[in-house]
Amino acid sequence: MTQTIEQREKTAGPQARVDTWLADFEGALAARDVERAAAMFATDCYWRDLVSFTWNLKTLEGRDAVAAMLRATLDEIDPSGFRTSEEPSEGGGVTEAWIEFDTAVGRGRGQLRLKEEGAWTLLTTLYELKGHEEPRGKGRPRGAEHGANRERETWSEKRVREAAELGYAAQPYALVVGGGQGGIALGARLRQLGVPTIIIDKRGRPGDQWRSRYTSLCLHDPVWYDHLPYLKFPENWPVFAPKDKIADWLESYTKIMELNYWTNTEATSARWDEGTREWTVEVERDGQPLVLRPKQLILATGMAGKPNVPAFPGMDRFRGEQHHSSAHPGPDAYAGKKVVVVGSNNSAFDICGALWEKGADVTMVQRSSSHIVKSDSLMDIGLGALYSEEAVASGMTTEKADMVFASLPYRIMHEFQIPLYDQMRERDKDFYDRLEAAGFDHDWGDDGSGLFMKYLRRGSGYYIDVGAAELVANGDVRLVGGQVKELTADSVVLQDGTTLPADLVVYATGYGSMNGWAADLISQEVADRVGKVWGLGSATTKDPGPWEGEQRNMWKPTQQESLWFHGGNLHQSRHYSLYLALQLKARFEGIPTPVYGLQEVHHLS
Amino acid sequence: MTQTIEQREKTAGPQARVDTWLADFEGALAARDVERAAAMFATDCYWRDLVSFTWNLKTLEGRDAVAAMLRATLDEIDPSGFRTSEEPSEGGGVTEAWIEFDTAVGRGRGQLRLKEEGAWTLLTTLYELKGHEEPRGKGRPRGAEHGANRERETWSEKRVREAAELGYAAQPYALVVGGGQGGIALGARLRQLGVPTIIIDKRGRPGDQWRSRYTSLCLHDPVWYDHLPYLKFPENWPVFAPKDKIADWLESYTKIMELNYWTNTEATSARWDEGTREWTVEVERDGQPLVLRPKQLILATGMAGKPNVPAFPGMDRFRGEQHHSSAHPGPDAYAGKKVVVVGSNNSAFDICGALWEKGADVTMVQRSSSHIVKSDSLMDIGLGALYSEEAVASGMTTEKADMVFASLPYRIMHEFQIPLYDQMRERDKDFYDRLEAAGFDHDWGDDGSGLFMKYLRRGSGYYIDVGAAELVANGDVRLVGGQVKELTADSVVLQDGTTLPADLVVYATGYGSMNGWAADLISQEVADRVGKVWGLGSATTKDPGPWEGEQRNMWKPTQQESLWFHGGNLHQSRHYSLYLALQLKARFEGIPTPVYGLQEVHHLS
Repeated sequence: MTQTIEQREKTAGPQARVDTWLADFEGALAARDVERAAAMFATDCYWRDLVSFTWNLKTLEGRDAVAAMLRATLDEIDPSGFRTSEEPSEGGGVTEAWIEFDTAVGRGRGQLRLKEEGAWTLLTTLYELKGHEEPRGKGRPRGAEHGANRERETWSEKRVREAAELGYAAQPYALVVGGGQGGIALGARLRQLGVPTIIIDKRGRPGDQWRSRYTSLCLHDPVWYDHLPYLKFPENWPVFAPKDKIADWLESYTKIMELNYWTNTEATSARWDEGTREWTVEVERDGQPLVLRPKQLILATGMAGKPNVPAFPGMDRFRGEQHHSSAHPGPDAYAGKKVVVVGSNNSAFDICGALWEKGADVTMVQRSSSHIVKSDSLMDIGLGALYSEEAVASGMTTEKADMVFASLPYRIMHEFQIPLYDQMRERDKDFYDRLEAAGFDHDWGDDGSGLFMKYLRRGSGYYIDVGAAELVANGDVRLVGGQVKELTADSVVLQDGTTLPADLVVYATGYGSMNGWAADLISQEVADRVGKVWGLGSATTKDPGPWEGEQRNMWKPTQQESLWFHGGNLHQSRHYSLYLALQLKARFEGIPTPVYGLQEVHHLS
Repeated sequence: MTQTIEQREKTAGPQARVDTWLADFEGALAARDVERAAAMFATDCYWRDLVSFTWNLKTLEGRDAVAAMLRATLDEIDPSGFRTSEEPSEGGGVTEAWIEFDTAVGRGRGQLRLKEEGAWTLLTTLYELKGHEEPRGKGRPRGAEHGANRERETWSEKRVREAAELGYAAQPYALVVGGGQGGIALGARLRQLGVPTIIIDKRGRPGDQWRSRYTSLCLHDPVWYDHLPYLKFPENWPVFAPKDKIADWLESYTKIMELNYWTNTEATSARWDEGTREWTVEVERDGQPLVLRPKQLILATGMAGKPNVPAFPGMDRFRGEQHHSSAHPGPDAYAGKKVVVVGSNNSAFDICGALWEKGADVTMVQRSSSHIVKSDSLMDIGLGALYSEEAVASGMTTEKADMVFASLPYRIMHEFQIPLYDQMRERDKDFYDRLEAAGFDHDWGDDGSGLFMKYLRRGSGYYIDVGAAELVANGDVRLVGGQVKELTADSVVLQDGTTLPADLVVYATGYGSMNGWAADLISQEVADRVGKVWGLGSATTKDPGPWEGEQRNMWKPTQQESLWFHGGNLHQSRHYSLYLALQLKARFEGIPTPVYGLQEVHHLS
């Protein structure tokens, strides 16, 4: 029988092959025949599930892991209706199909890659809960209430009342701490899903997270990669949005999406009550203390986490100015000044470049190797196929590009990345030669897989060059390698004795794990219980093993009930906010959400 | 030879038929053989040109008119490259094709409908000027300026400088008076085209045009019909946006599109100088007088024009409150009060309904017949094919829908409208029966062509029912027919002696022609030279002949050099702002714009 099917598959086209696989797969699942279902995967296989089977973000690697997951989830999930949503394609021995399916409580989309032996990769994602579909398209709200109604409350009256009541007369179900793009994107999704939510941010206006940064800052990712949910940037939007423009966009978006966004509000403490199963969060809004009691607490305070400020001897006796890069006000006050920037990644380069432009005398201290790619090369080679004007023209939507991206298992993602960075190395050979001739210690990641894997693994260790690397290569920005020994009253001294006179020292020394936010807001005990946030467990520099398969603690349940971490770049804020929002919505509606494979904690920070 | 071509056309498919026609047409144009080109049209034919051939909005009716236009324009326009942009379709003896073409200075799009005898309708429109393409899609701005540059001016620095200089150190090329959706849409297009423009509005915030109106107001047109250029409403946008929501959208849009929008600014006088060929416009900005010297002056102060406040005897002795509907603050202050609303069109109904909801004792005075359609019926029957979720699902874009709409010649548009209103009459028969039983004097337009033709012809005489008509039908809002004779200290008295006690009288008595704005701002002489604005010359009620073929004075050159009128509903503001913007851009760049068939003036107002 198996022989016959294989024969048929070999001769049939991709559509028939996929249809057969899906029908057989569904049959095995319906019969709860876990062994048969698992055997339909290749020996080397990856099933990535985003919330639809596991109520978790989970990649199952190998048939045993697939079988174990199915055994635990099948009865509750009761999947059915597997079908293709467009015609499958074939190439290089892999048949690729976009699929849809149902679960007991929701509707899913996914992607399947079949090899001769069976399924190589399977992506399953939940996109809506039955009976709780978002009001969009055909289901969009009506707006006007036709008819005459003496109890009428207009849109603005309702909005004003809701805004006045939420947090006072009515408690939010979800409290999002941090109102950058992450908090805003999640807030927009929760708004659509009807989950009462407050977003709080200590700054004065939505977008101030960007406005407050150095003047010349522009997004390093291009517009096609950066769309927020529901409302895309207009087609005249710049490729790399200047920071004040993206700030204004976020502010408008917050208003258009009718978010309950509290500015000038800081959370000072949070405590989980096992009895009432709710958080007690003390906040100060416009200086007034207030207690909120949300059921869910989401930290969206920045995936970069808390600033790592180094502790060098002599920092207390240094008479100039010194600050972490996150507090750097921009170059305007430093024309003609001597500036030492400690660090050699994104912030360090951008700050060095802006200072040089304003006429400062700038020295960069490189303490460890760093990875640089030219922005144009990254765009053309790294992102072009999914996120570019050409991709749009060829019918690639943002949503589909996100799914393609999500379909690549983290375990093998570097294999797809290495050849791209080999291309970049080739294309920009002159640049790298000059940079290294200037003494720069350059790397391509532990396994040559470049920038994006560094981002996913450690969130640091790179610079997307928009110009400042050239200043280092040509010596306009002085480069010194080595470790800082101490500061004197007016200089930075390295271990080798090099003395760098300084009016200003900028510590572009990076950030800690996001669970540092939890330590500050809740307790060290909860931060330790949750453990390190971000990274894959790839056993590469700054991303210790064991292998996790997904990014630690991001957008999924943690070891602390009802505590969540959200954030990342605009792409991640957009895409993963959907899965986090659906997890929260299900809990809000009392839909059972049995979490399969809650991650274990291997590292405290 | 002709026989052979006809034979071939009959047997060939629509693509071949259209290709042949386009090739022959282009050949005739290239040979400047005007007679041959005109003979390719049917006897009953309509060629509507939006700026591409005529630098005007012009519908040519009949072969002679086609020939005359071609004789006057061909050498300058030098059209070429006629081709289909998608596969033509055929039905009911008409072959329909979407086309593209080039002119000497620009690129055009259009639509062709072929009958057996030849072209029945042809739409030609200009969509961009060569060498002046909008920076969008592949041509979008880069945003970040990569590289190190000591002269760098950031986006926000540049924006701040430009905003500070324009109107002071630098003069705007175009001054748009009125910052509602019309002024904003035009401003956005001019911004993209790089034409220095200031939009002025007397109100405090963009969107206040909507905010300041009565509380319950929602758009009467649905979302699919209402998009602005470049940035579409998100898919969760309500079908009928509440007024404060659309107001907030306009405010965000103004910011996102980086318009130079001056709030709290009123133009007090304007004068055209023949010598310098520029306007001298006195404005007050935040109370400070200032003189602007734009080359082009655009009145976008509302297609409704200035309020028609009637002059009834006794208005001076009336001791209650009285105001025009445009000044009506909403119902909140009038609970329990006696209100007489004079008028029976949109504003009258909406105001009556809102007053009734707040518990006022409301009487509507109907002075002449009016036309009512149910909002749902108008949506389903009147707009559904082009502007609806179903239309979007079937691949109809807003831009294409606008072109389909533009392709129907005004001369025969009513023929397409009459059957739609016949359907509505049938569908809502019960409603109309009840309404007439209540004494309402209802009409369907002079020729039964309903609401949209009334809008185009006279801009008045109808109500899109969102509920208030039911209150009139069931007597909750009292209906009285007749003419107002006078006001007493506390009542409105009709010609038949009926006395209506009143604490408040609302004059929902409509608006004058937009050239009234020109009279106020410039002079009565210029207003008279320009003549009546709006209407088609259909020789129906309030739209006297002779036939004009296009809406008088809207979006096209007028008898006053460099004076333009812009506005209309959101659909018109969106679509026609393109053609007005291209006319202004061409003049800004010094591209010759010989206007064919400048309209004559037949009516002063």
